[in-house]
Amino acid sequence: MKAKVYVTLKEGVLDPQGKTIRHALNNIGFQGVNEVRMGKYFEIRLDDQDQEAASEKLKRICHEMLSNPVIENYRFEILPEKVDL
Amino acid sequence: MKAKVYVTLKEGVLDPQGKTIRHALNNIGFQGVNEVRMGKYFEIRLDDQDQEAASEKLKRICHEMLSNPVIENYRFEILPEKVDL
Repeated sequence: MKAKVYVTLKEGVLDPQGKTIRHALNNIGFQGVNEVRMGKYFEIRLDDQDQEAASEKLKRICHEMLSNPVIENYRFEILPEKVDL
Repeated sequence: MKAKVYVTLKEGVLDPQGKTIRHALNNIGFQGVNEVRMGKYFEIRLDDQDQEAASEKLKRICHEMLSNPVIENYRFEILPEKVDL
């Protein structure tokens, strides 16, 4: 199984990295960029063959390792093994 | 316009962060995690109303600011303004 995991800051949580990128874009001439929010993205390859077991494991992985549940949300997609990540 | 941007390391480029996460997962008891690759994820809000103009601008933004084209690939999706990011 392969999985794609997206971790994003919860709404209302300040994102200084995103703000810095937005200012930097304005400074190098990109106008009309109103907001940039930065998150994390992971591609994971799992041994599990069972979709439900993989989903359960990924939930725990996201909760315990990949995200900070106090300030971040996560979501993931599970893909068939033969899909190229 | 809103956009979601994904930046990933090119194939063959070492990913020490991903490797560290994989080892850490094994250490806290998650077995069967064979590979973790870490990337970046951005949500961007643009003024542009024209899909083609937005796409052109995003390409330049990805190339010049969000990715290192020597070692990273990027892809993005453009979404209608009313979609919640």
